[in-house]
Amino acid sequence: MTITTKEFATFLKKKGFIYPSSEIYGGVSGLYDYGHLGTLLKHNFEQQWRNFFLKLNDNFYEIETANIMHKNVFKASGHIDNFIDPIAHCSKCEFFERADHLIEDNTRERAEGLSPEELKGLITKNNITCPKCKSEIGEVSILNMMFPLQMGATTTNTSYLRPETAQSPYVNFKLQFELLRKKLPLGLALIGRAYRNEISPRNLTLRQREFTQAELQIFFNPNKIKEHPDFNTIKNTKLRTLLIEDRKKGKVVERTAQELIKAGLPKFYIYHLAKIQEFYFDVLKVPKEKFRFYQLNDSEKAFYNKYHFDLEIELNEHGFTEMGGLHYRTDHDLKGHQKISNQKMEVLDESTGEKIIPHVLELSFGVDRHLYALLDISYDQDQDRGNTLLHLPNKFAPFFCAVFPLVKNKPEITEKAKSIYKEINSCYSCYYDETASVGRRYARADEIGVPFCITVDFDSLEDNSVTIRNRDSTEQQRIKISDLKNKLFELYFS
Amino acid sequence: MTITTKEFATFLKKKGFIYPSSEIYGGVSGLYDYGHLGTLLKHNFEQQWRNFFLKLNDNFYEIETANIMHKNVFKASGHIDNFIDPIAHCSKCEFFERADHLIEDNTRERAEGLSPEELKGLITKNNITCPKCKSEIGEVSILNMMFPLQMGATTTNTSYLRPETAQSPYVNFKLQFELLRKKLPLGLALIGRAYRNEISPRNLTLRQREFTQAELQIFFNPNKIKEHPDFNTIKNTKLRTLLIEDRKKGKVVERTAQELIKAGLPKFYIYHLAKIQEFYFDVLKVPKEKFRFYQLNDSEKAFYNKYHFDLEIELNEHGFTEMGGLHYRTDHDLKGHQKISNQKMEVLDESTGEKIIPHVLELSFGVDRHLYALLDISYDQDQDRGNTLLHLPNKFAPFFCAVFPLVKNKPEITEKAKSIYKEINSCYSCYYDETASVGRRYARADEIGVPFCITVDFDSLEDNSVTIRNRDSTEQQRIKISDLKNKLFELYFS
Repeated sequence: MTITTKEFATFLKKKGFIYPSSEIYGGVSGLYDYGHLGTLLKHNFEQQWRNFFLKLNDNFYEIETANIMHKNVFKASGHIDNFIDPIAHCSKCEFFERADHLIEDNTRERAEGLSPEELKGLITKNNITCPKCKSEIGEVSILNMMFPLQMGATTTNTSYLRPETAQSPYVNFKLQFELLRKKLPLGLALIGRAYRNEISPRNLTLRQREFTQAELQIFFNPNKIKEHPDFNTIKNTKLRTLLIEDRKKGKVVERTAQELIKAGLPKFYIYHLAKIQEFYFDVLKVPKEKFRFYQLNDSEKAFYNKYHFDLEIELNEHGFTEMGGLHYRTDHDLKGHQKISNQKMEVLDESTGEKIIPHVLELSFGVDRHLYALLDISYDQDQDRGNTLLHLPNKFAPFFCAVFPLVKNKPEITEKAKSIYKEINSCYSCYYDETASVGRRYARADEIGVPFCITVDFDSLEDNSVTIRNRDSTEQQRIKISDLKNKLFELYFS
Repeated sequence: MTITTKEFATFLKKKGFIYPSSEIYGGVSGLYDYGHLGTLLKHNFEQQWRNFFLKLNDNFYEIETANIMHKNVFKASGHIDNFIDPIAHCSKCEFFERADHLIEDNTRERAEGLSPEELKGLITKNNITCPKCKSEIGEVSILNMMFPLQMGATTTNTSYLRPETAQSPYVNFKLQFELLRKKLPLGLALIGRAYRNEISPRNLTLRQREFTQAELQIFFNPNKIKEHPDFNTIKNTKLRTLLIEDRKKGKVVERTAQELIKAGLPKFYIYHLAKIQEFYFDVLKVPKEKFRFYQLNDSEKAFYNKYHFDLEIELNEHGFTEMGGLHYRTDHDLKGHQKISNQKMEVLDESTGEKIIPHVLELSFGVDRHLYALLDISYDQDQDRGNTLLHLPNKFAPFFCAVFPLVKNKPEITEKAKSIYKEINSCYSCYYDETASVGRRYARADEIGVPFCITVDFDSLEDNSVTIRNRDSTEQQRIKISDLKNKLFELYFS
């Protein structure tokens, strides 16, 4: 089912999932709010992400940290010098746009990572003019994408809103290592906000100025990168990869983990590719053909990333879109922090007796992008039913179930329905609805992706049974009220 | 058990609960990070808060919104004009301090809410000098406490980090009302960050520049403020209040809800006081004598708050300390937004047919302050055991239980312990520990507040039973492994 991003935005707002922030004031470009349903969906995503990634290893932990950080953090990470966007500026109408995006929109070629001179060259070569007033584009200039903040009453004490959550685990690493088990690999997960002064935020929550990241930073001994104790459990897993060499054909190739070793990737990296794919297939339930690992080439990836695959989902209108990445950041960050802070980042790997600065493998997920993707791939306009349908997985649906009395003017029925609702609501996200016809209520439940609707009818008063309706098949099953909780438990994990 | 804030800070860092943010760079004043244990505690608080307050009414919902907001939001709310701090400035050593705090520290009198002239007068009258260099304090000046941000490539497009989460539900109100049931009262809860450029942040997480608030904004028909459908359920509840009239005696008076009506408070307000107290006593398990409602007088409370009680907990060193408040904000915010945005905030109260701008009752909780308080009142140095102990409530403890093999060199025992750990860990937060003596492990568990430790010993191999040790009583109970899950379930709710 293909709809435009604009139609999709209307749907998301109408249902209260996602809509522009500060909207009564015309909004602020690149900022979005989650309504009631969007918030439940976001919580479910975050919880499922934690459940999956924190359980990969007993030595993985979550931390939560301030969004504002010391300026030296970003001196060390390179953000003050390198976290810049090339800006194309129309001197006539004061229109601003990212120069690489302007080129990509006009030529359909990737232009990320090019220098201001190269970008200006491409603008001239392709005769690209201002999209607003068609005037000539001036020089390409540079803007740092971080938001500076003045702390206290002086104007010299600058801090920054973090542009990526990753730096928080890096500056916390040494302390956490000492406080926890002093063991490698150590994983520090963080779900939190990051802020980027994007010049041209767009496509709803796909490119925002404020967004939530769920990231796991794994600190490990680089001499062990060619091994992982559980590699054998995934060695035959087929991974959907688009390597640099596959680009010409533009086709995803399924390669086993074993085969990726031959392609030059180390086992420690491949193992986490496999686990990530498992998350997409088994937890997020993304259809296989809509997922791929996209390998970045040297000009696309950050210079400190030795291996970098984007995690991509195919979206309506947008095609395959970056959702996150698996980044082997080496010792770039810890070394940087050691240098600027004068704090030793070296630790002892007890298992080998080596003293090393750990390397970092970063598993990075854009939460807002995943929510967009989940809604996008779940969206379905069912012709037979005549209503929209969200095929959200059971563990992600804002409401797992709903309880309806067949009619609302029969107190025995509504009371029974309410007591069932109360009982179920203590275990599952659930709502009670008695307004309008039951058909209309099913349709409304479909539209917000409720997997199961439970209806109490006249027969329920006699046989103490209810009907459970399946969102996707519309099949209805009769079940004893006394068996309901067990049945829902079973369905939840189906 | 009394310890100094400094000693407490050392303990919190050593255990990885809370420590200064960006610490390897010397920290940033007023910013703190939560380590692994602090993060688990914070999640537990947020979940328990949701469970309690969202369930007060079927028409209460949670939303999650951008931290950056449009400047007009704060024009409407009054923050641009009024959210200011009086700054005392030493012209000799460049020391800055909040003028009211400087006076309070020197005179032990409240000075909040006074004008710059009044503050300067008090500084002169009391001969207060610079705390650093003892020079004379100059004029008292004014600083807006919001953090401005420039959006995009221009310097004229200012937005702000929100200084309170409350404005997000206010600007979302009309849309959410239309999307949801169009019913009053409507509750919009939000747990999120707020940012204030405090001049002198202090006392760890008690006064930070970035902090988490958990707030419930209840939009209701002001003509119904003298009623609440469930008032009778709480009418005899004794509320621990310190009214303005009680100040001279400085003693908390227990008054029933009924009696507070006579003191001039409306039922709708009193009902929520009672529910809040229930949260402190039944959920947070705060000892009764350590909690009070503190009524603010006209010069202390914001001019738009018609009724305002602080929620206070008595802390070591700090005495009774503000944790949050119950604020009757009237229609101040919605009217302000209506005026500046030109969007009608009026809605139809279907139950009476009236068209009204709803009034707002705000239940406001500082999350970081509550975590500090929970740790502070749980902290205990047990002389008999010779170790520190945290008496955290079961539902808040970062780990509800731990599993130990009595010895680690007996594979039958460690394997049994690991399999029990795996089983329990799927339901409860739990860890496995086999290092050091079992006595040492009990002590470590005490220090991080683990309510129950489960030990697998030699007898376990024969009788398929384990020992459960109670943190507070140190009592040990023998229990069948097959009954363990049921037993833990029962203990969790005890």
